[in-house]
Amino acid sequence: MVGGEEETIENPVVLVSHRGPVQFARQGNERTVDRGGGGLVTALSGLIPDLDHAVWVCAALTDEDEVVAAEHDGAGFDVGEGNDHVRLRMVVVDDETHDQFYSIVANPLLWFIQHQLWDTKVSPELTRREHDAFTDGYVEVNRSFAHAVVEEVEASGGAATVMVHDYHFYLLPELVRERCPEVFLHHFVHIPWPSSDAWRVLPPVMREAIFNGMLGNDVVAFHTERSARNFVLGCEELLDLPVDLDARSVTVGDRSVVARAYPISIDADDFEARAASDPVTEHREALESTRRDHLLLRVDRTDPSKNIVRGFRAFDLLLRDHPELAGQVSFLALLQPSRQDVEEYADYTALIRRVVADVNLEHGTADWQPIDLRLEEDLDLAVAAYTLFDVLVVNAVVDGMNLVAKEAVLVNRRNGVLALSENAGAHEELGKLAVTLYPFDLQQQADALYEAITMPTDERRRRREAAADHVRSHDVSGWFGAQLDDIACLRSLPEAST
Amino acid sequence: MVGGEEETIENPVVLVSHRGPVQFARQGNERTVDRGGGGLVTALSGLIPDLDHAVWVCAALTDEDEVVAAEHDGAGFDVGEGNDHVRLRMVVVDDETHDQFYSIVANPLLWFIQHQLWDTKVSPELTRREHDAFTDGYVEVNRSFAHAVVEEVEASGGAATVMVHDYHFYLLPELVRERCPEVFLHHFVHIPWPSSDAWRVLPPVMREAIFNGMLGNDVVAFHTERSARNFVLGCEELLDLPVDLDARSVTVGDRSVVARAYPISIDADDFEARAASDPVTEHREALESTRRDHLLLRVDRTDPSKNIVRGFRAFDLLLRDHPELAGQVSFLALLQPSRQDVEEYADYTALIRRVVADVNLEHGTADWQPIDLRLEEDLDLAVAAYTLFDVLVVNAVVDGMNLVAKEAVLVNRRNGVLALSENAGAHEELGKLAVTLYPFDLQQQADALYEAITMPTDERRRRREAAADHVRSHDVSGWFGAQLDDIACLRSLPEAST
Repeated sequence: MVGGEEETIENPVVLVSHRGPVQFARQGNERTVDRGGGGLVTALSGLIPDLDHAVWVCAALTDEDEVVAAEHDGAGFDVGEGNDHVRLRMVVVDDETHDQFYSIVANPLLWFIQHQLWDTKVSPELTRREHDAFTDGYVEVNRSFAHAVVEEVEASGGAATVMVHDYHFYLLPELVRERCPEVFLHHFVHIPWPSSDAWRVLPPVMREAIFNGMLGNDVVAFHTERSARNFVLGCEELLDLPVDLDARSVTVGDRSVVARAYPISIDADDFEARAASDPVTEHREALESTRRDHLLLRVDRTDPSKNIVRGFRAFDLLLRDHPELAGQVSFLALLQPSRQDVEEYADYTALIRRVVADVNLEHGTADWQPIDLRLEEDLDLAVAAYTLFDVLVVNAVVDGMNLVAKEAVLVNRRNGVLALSENAGAHEELGKLAVTLYPFDLQQQADALYEAITMPTDERRRRREAAADHVRSHDVSGWFGAQLDDIACLRSLPEAST
Repeated sequence: MVGGEEETIENPVVLVSHRGPVQFARQGNERTVDRGGGGLVTALSGLIPDLDHAVWVCAALTDEDEVVAAEHDGAGFDVGEGNDHVRLRMVVVDDETHDQFYSIVANPLLWFIQHQLWDTKVSPELTRREHDAFTDGYVEVNRSFAHAVVEEVEASGGAATVMVHDYHFYLLPELVRERCPEVFLHHFVHIPWPSSDAWRVLPPVMREAIFNGMLGNDVVAFHTERSARNFVLGCEELLDLPVDLDARSVTVGDRSVVARAYPISIDADDFEARAASDPVTEHREALESTRRDHLLLRVDRTDPSKNIVRGFRAFDLLLRDHPELAGQVSFLALLQPSRQDVEEYADYTALIRRVVADVNLEHGTADWQPIDLRLEEDLDLAVAAYTLFDVLVVNAVVDGMNLVAKEAVLVNRRNGVLALSENAGAHEELGKLAVTLYPFDLQQQADALYEAITMPTDERRRRREAAADHVRSHDVSGWFGAQLDDIACLRSLPEAST
């Protein structure tokens, strides 16, 4: 919840994200409502009910979503009651346009650029397919959403606050600004913003559209100072705009756009309650009964940005360098298969299976398999494992935040050590309490895992408790409240810095 | 030659580069002297004789080099006379140390980082091999060279000017500075300096050594403003040092280190004379007799940074989009095989041959092969082709300078158009006279090649002549002279900016 009067903003809020808080489906004659949909949506769903006059603009992703949207002639409608109430506006996009927008431009093109995953020697190769997908897909979807946002803003009197989320809508802010000059636009990018070298993978016709689109905002928000800085530097390097790097601001005509870092977090109370739930307890008991002296854990989607293969290779080096650990350590990897229809993802998953087989063949015995790979999604199992790990491995190539790190240190009961990539957003907050991993250096990671395993108990306890305290005192409501505070401040003092 | 008294520096100069201006060999009982060795060494060899009291510290690369070095007990010795005279000091490094230094760290590790060629999803994987190569190879060779430089500096009274070249010696400046506080250290990096994202491929133990080593210099010099800026930003981001981005300076204790851009060039008179020579004329006549209406040309090493595969794929798109060009255009590719003992390079060469075969199969006819691939080194042939091209294709992923662009526009006789990657250093000087290529965008490259082929003659002539004039008025002696001017200025006014 968003506490305190000082965090309220009085203007109507229009929230924009690709995936909305509910999805409709049909079972026989019944319409069903699914409230799943990922960490961001869950976080926002818990926060939005505290805002008065909020409407959430999202994509109609299922056939039934489209039916519901049509029933309301594309206008907004109310779903749920009380704390579950939300006003929705679902935007219908035809399948081909959506595919160009989503499966060609947003993923993998933008995702790979922002996570620096392209093998630039040979890929990507942008052809007419990508240009068309940008023009007919990405631009079109941004226009459709901007149209819906403009209608909602105008219906609310023109001075609404628009809060846009993520890399699907980089063009939208400029389009809304053109039509609604009095609007306040705030855009949160949940994935890393890389340096200009990475953006130069795109030709100017795309990258300038993206930067100019983002400069329609008043605030561009990220999880990290590094991303905020890269954004400002990029405006200078790619658009030749005047910037103030220390103030993290860009001058666009007579306006000023600020870049800010607000590290996202979790609902700590809610998560601790889940960790104490029966299903989690059952999983924990099962895991405890088979555990070895040292439990390494990773919980990730099978995304190349997560650096899973190098993590297992580092574990292989650890076992080679320290044969005394044979039979005493196991590496539980709970990996949710991700985007297996994309070639790069399917290839990466195959490589994961290959390296696990190699490591287990090399080091395993009749009664000990060093790596326990589970390619499935089971949040209760993951939370159970969070309570039990001795070392949590987060070695991402680069990661916007990585909430696994925050969830796991919060509920861990074994003075578990966080082994955290310097390129995970969480490192800006928790790096000093973690053992830092340098994601391209297998030997360093192996050495760091050994340091974590052998760290004295007092030191482990001190670090784990300090990290958990940090998460409790910087939870998701604080993340959202800080943004609302800044919005209120910037609206009242157009040129103020906070 | 270095003209004008104002460009002379009075202190002794110690020049440092991995490859020196001569290499010794033995044929039977005869010692032979080879003055080959690449563009940089050729350029410097022409400039150094104008300096008084210069000594050139370089590696003993051949067996006979080592014999010569031993004959002089590792001290300096004179080679040649008159304009060919140079004082050399050859540093002997044992084969294994040199291999670790050169074939593991400098190439491909640093080369790939600085040209952004790693497939970061899966490579590199730094292991003990790379750590050992850094410590036992790169550090050791830098120490050996620093020792030689220190001896030369001390022999000259301590206030020498040391001019270091390239990515082999990033650690040397700090080592020399520690021993010779009165020295003036100037370091030229001939390959691109990328943003911190790329440097984070290395763990701090390596990247901080590199940045700290470079901060032993007074001037860090690059071909481009982009590299100079990235260096300064990197000092802030990776070492947390105070910087002045506008002044391109970094504060290190009580010293200031400046980053400067000096775009290298060619000896225009010498090159024009070569273009008029008999061997070049013979090649030109042979090429002319077989040419089609439009001749596209590229001249490169088979380095992945040169982006040869995407260039051919863009040509494929050009032929698909414009069938009327069939039989009228040919693409002559003069490619010097490079580092074929390195897996990535051998793979890349195989991929080049594959794509050429595909394009010629798809579009070729009995009397027309669209791509004429020649995997060999023949400078006279290349210069002959320079005189004849209609479009020169330089689509590098990224390139320090790319002197081919300067050589070719200087001597071209057909109002040839330069099609130039935005990421080639030469683009900062010649971009406005070129058709810009965006190296990851095949469609844009195909469209740009078509624009170049169909550009009106007057416009082609204007641009080509302006580019040639630029090269003539900014030749290699100006490049060197500007550095000497700045050194003289900075020595006399320690805190001055130029």
